[in-house]
Amino acid sequence: MPPLQPSAKALVPFVSVDNMMRLIHHIGVEDMLRGLADYIEEDFKRWPLFDKTPRVASHSAEGVIELMPTSDGEVYGFKYVNGHPKNTAEGLQTVTAFGLLADVGCGYPVLLSEMTLLTALRTAATSALVARILAPKGATTMAMIGNGAQSEFQSLAMKAICGITHIRLYDTDQAATEKCARNLYGLGLTVTPCDTAEHAIMGAQIVTTCTADKQYATILTDNMIGAGVHINAIGGDCPGKTELAPAILQRADIFVEYPEQTRIEGEIQQLPKDHPVTEIWQVLTNQAPGRSSDAQITLFDSVGFAIEDFSALRYIRAKVHDTGLFDTLDMLADPDDPRDLFGMLERSNPT
Amino acid sequence: MPPLQPSAKALVPFVSVDNMMRLIHHIGVEDMLRGLADYIEEDFKRWPLFDKTPRVASHSAEGVIELMPTSDGEVYGFKYVNGHPKNTAEGLQTVTAFGLLADVGCGYPVLLSEMTLLTALRTAATSALVARILAPKGATTMAMIGNGAQSEFQSLAMKAICGITHIRLYDTDQAATEKCARNLYGLGLTVTPCDTAEHAIMGAQIVTTCTADKQYATILTDNMIGAGVHINAIGGDCPGKTELAPAILQRADIFVEYPEQTRIEGEIQQLPKDHPVTEIWQVLTNQAPGRSSDAQITLFDSVGFAIEDFSALRYIRAKVHDTGLFDTLDMLADPDDPRDLFGMLERSNPT
Repeated sequence: MPPLQPSAKALVPFVSVDNMMRLIHHIGVEDMLRGLADYIEEDFKRWPLFDKTPRVASHSAEGVIELMPTSDGEVYGFKYVNGHPKNTAEGLQTVTAFGLLADVGCGYPVLLSEMTLLTALRTAATSALVARILAPKGATTMAMIGNGAQSEFQSLAMKAICGITHIRLYDTDQAATEKCARNLYGLGLTVTPCDTAEHAIMGAQIVTTCTADKQYATILTDNMIGAGVHINAIGGDCPGKTELAPAILQRADIFVEYPEQTRIEGEIQQLPKDHPVTEIWQVLTNQAPGRSSDAQITLFDSVGFAIEDFSALRYIRAKVHDTGLFDTLDMLADPDDPRDLFGMLERSNPT
Repeated sequence: MPPLQPSAKALVPFVSVDNMMRLIHHIGVEDMLRGLADYIEEDFKRWPLFDKTPRVASHSAEGVIELMPTSDGEVYGFKYVNGHPKNTAEGLQTVTAFGLLADVGCGYPVLLSEMTLLTALRTAATSALVARILAPKGATTMAMIGNGAQSEFQSLAMKAICGITHIRLYDTDQAATEKCARNLYGLGLTVTPCDTAEHAIMGAQIVTTCTADKQYATILTDNMIGAGVHINAIGGDCPGKTELAPAILQRADIFVEYPEQTRIEGEIQQLPKDHPVTEIWQVLTNQAPGRSSDAQITLFDSVGFAIEDFSALRYIRAKVHDTGLFDTLDMLADPDDPRDLFGMLERSNPT
């Protein structure tokens, strides 16, 4: 007897890299960044609802593999993500990722998706969502320090969500800067490649740092940061990996996603455990102030949190439902009689 | 320009339910159970090598969704698994699962596989591997209390690995017993359906309990268990879910996979935190005694540990490599220049 067809619940929609790219082009990058920011804002505003745990990390000499789960009580999501700084030199991605949503009520997965591209988009959308509430009013210019895989997404998100018009690029590797400038050409931004970080931050109201070394680095020194700047620090995101001089942290008002995780992984791992920080969701719900003066230095110490991935997967689930840009995977054994897994197996025997 | 083909590293082999069933038939259920037991034994014997954490559980009113990660330093693996006892009444599986292996060196996934069937097989293989070292010598008869989805796999594993020839079935639902007896017909076992648990355990040297209620239940009472029996307790595997009377635990020598996890999830959640238990890997490496007398009651308080899934995925990876019984998923974005994720996206633009 031929194998029975699996039931609908046993088939999991899967968004491949190819379909994710089709979806991004179908929606448009900037519209998608805005849509993702809306979903993330919506979930940040119902923050207390979520089941939150710091990510589960498996560290090795070469890098880290992490699982980032969360749940809002109705939908469960997790992301698998690696971080291997040495990968770039071997022609591989530093960060690759995929993610899953499942129905809390029955435990069955409802979406599997590539998340390498989606993580780049959601990280940029989160940065811009936060910059919209923390950057000085009327900000027009962002310095982008580190011109790797995240840099174009950051630039376009700041344009789409915060109205940034000028991007000043710097990377220790000039080829990276050239690549970023080339990719941003014709997308409605004025782009200025710079020879030094000091040059890049001139006139910038927003300074984004996104470098990839797994070591304590000092991308920004204390004397580089003047009053009235918003720092969007992306690259310090695991133990031993930071980008800012501690003196900057002391002068800034610090905003974070989830303090329990950021104190381990973020820039503030350099500070005492009780250094005051503000949670972004509290600013979004008007329970805590955001920027309170023009001269203030605000710092978003971003490490990436599971809820952002959850929001992104929710967004994708809604959009692929409309567009059909997914395959279906026969991933869950689902016999007609759930107690009869063995019978299903036997009935599939071709002999 | 059409999308570039992803590189080999970006394509992840995927074993669907259909291919898993083909693989099982290709190898043969009993040979596969023996092969899995060999892989599990091999990994248990190098137990100290593994990165071990208790599973990461997300509990809800209806059930639980868990991630079970581990790593041997070269390969990383995790399983997603749900447990929803109410699912059966709705025509769904109580437990569904899938799993993944990845290369620790670069963090790229190397295998995605269905694990609903595979979990049933590895659970049975683990039970039989442990029974082979703990059950009384010359054991011929197993009582199988709980005749759900796991029961046939347990029966065949005990036949293939321990030489069991007689199975005595009992379930509170007679239809489940009839289903199990029907499925085992013609597979080389003498099968006796029984009306009561007391009847089922008569003459059995091995008593396996595998029931699914999420509550403190007493499937075996103290007076039912005499000297010289090996109890293989499968069903007590989350907080609040147990099957044995505490008095049996007091009389038995207790063997576990990973005490940190079993004390939370297993039968021994009913005992003080310092009640002595023996880890199975120590018996397999001759660092602790197994069965020491004919009269001894041994209890394998099995909750299922991440290393067993890791072993099972390792086995599948080796076997699908030989047979080609897999698809490839375009799951990882992998631009030619790893810093140029945005460029890859732009070049895929159909317009």
